[in-house]
Amino acid sequence: MEIAILLFDGTTHLDSVGPYEVLHNLPEADVKFVAKKTGVYRDRCGMLGLHADFTLNDVTAPDILVVPGGGGADGAAEDPEITDWVAEVHKATTWTTSVCTGALILGGAGVLNGLKATTHWRAMETLQSYGAEPTRERVVQQGKVITAAGVSSGIDMALTLTAEIAGEEVAKAVQLGIEYDPQPPFDAGDYTTAPDERIALWRSGINKTKR
Amino acid sequence: MEIAILLFDGTTHLDSVGPYEVLHNLPEADVKFVAKKTGVYRDRCGMLGLHADFTLNDVTAPDILVVPGGGGADGAAEDPEITDWVAEVHKATTWTTSVCTGALILGGAGVLNGLKATTHWRAMETLQSYGAEPTRERVVQQGKVITAAGVSSGIDMALTLTAEIAGEEVAKAVQLGIEYDPQPPFDAGDYTTAPDERIALWRSGINKTKR
Repeated sequence: MEIAILLFDGTTHLDSVGPYEVLHNLPEADVKFVAKKTGVYRDRCGMLGLHADFTLNDVTAPDILVVPGGGGADGAAEDPEITDWVAEVHKATTWTTSVCTGALILGGAGVLNGLKATTHWRAMETLQSYGAEPTRERVVQQGKVITAAGVSSGIDMALTLTAEIAGEEVAKAVQLGIEYDPQPPFDAGDYTTAPDERIALWRSGINKTKR
Repeated sequence: MEIAILLFDGTTHLDSVGPYEVLHNLPEADVKFVAKKTGVYRDRCGMLGLHADFTLNDVTAPDILVVPGGGGADGAAEDPEITDWVAEVHKATTWTTSVCTGALILGGAGVLNGLKATTHWRAMETLQSYGAEPTRERVVQQGKVITAAGVSSGIDMALTLTAEIAGEEVAKAVQLGIEYDPQPPFDAGDYTTAPDERIALWRSGINKTKR
């Protein structure tokens, strides 16, 4: 089972590493980090780099596609080299998925037209501009297309997908393996209940350091 | 604020990327991925590589140390080049932390002697052999030393640490930013309630593919 995870400049890496740590346990999974060129792809602040081992040309018919988001996703959603590839491999996939603003890239590829979908809360309006119907669930499934909300939601999405593919017992064993028994110290992850001051604090960019 | 995250061959990358996505938002945080040599460090199955930008010699007095685990942690805990560095920088840190079997590396460096600590459930006995008192909480704080349970627990740990350093409102804004409102599809992440068959399934290695 070939699983392609897309990288681009300005990827938020938890968007991909969360699902990766779940999905690479699927029986016979061969996960390929894919980008326009092989090499290290950094997040927006430049402090973390993941290595893409394969080019877009190397991976043409993955069983599963995972598209992460991040600050660079808005640009990637308008990059024909990326969106043409997404549109093309989507024809072959069994599952096409996104995390966070990765949904914008699916949108740019025409995958979400007329579908319910979700993304990071900051990008709901942009998502709509791609013809999707923004939905405030954490994981939204429409046929073979699954979109997940911001960043950390990819773990929940990938466990749901693992159960679909390999059954609940495998999904539960993987959940046990990554000890995913979340105990966040605060109840502050839901946009719909966040006070305006907190949203403004996040949007202001708390740490402005870049490298 | 300098934050050092250790890499080694066979790191489980969610152990570090989870905390990273939280901690890199701390005001003036400068996060450095550190290893024996610069370059790409792969997880045990070889499918995911993170780039270490700094050598151990480059980073001698970080404010925060984060030590992830993984299949390679048992060996790293017995590698004097790594454990000597951990022991040395621990003298300078404000916070010394581990995720998953990263606790074994702290143990190998003598940091956990006589302290309550936690790790991935598979390594509780090994942890004890390093003089720690294994504890079944998800995040265990002993003075400036914080250990977290398996893999995904690093997100919870890092949010707790963010609140300690920058206050609850910053931690809540970061939690909102990564949309950490976990909704696991199953209640299967807690080792103490897992049936033996599920533990055996995980231990058997569901996907044996390596690259």
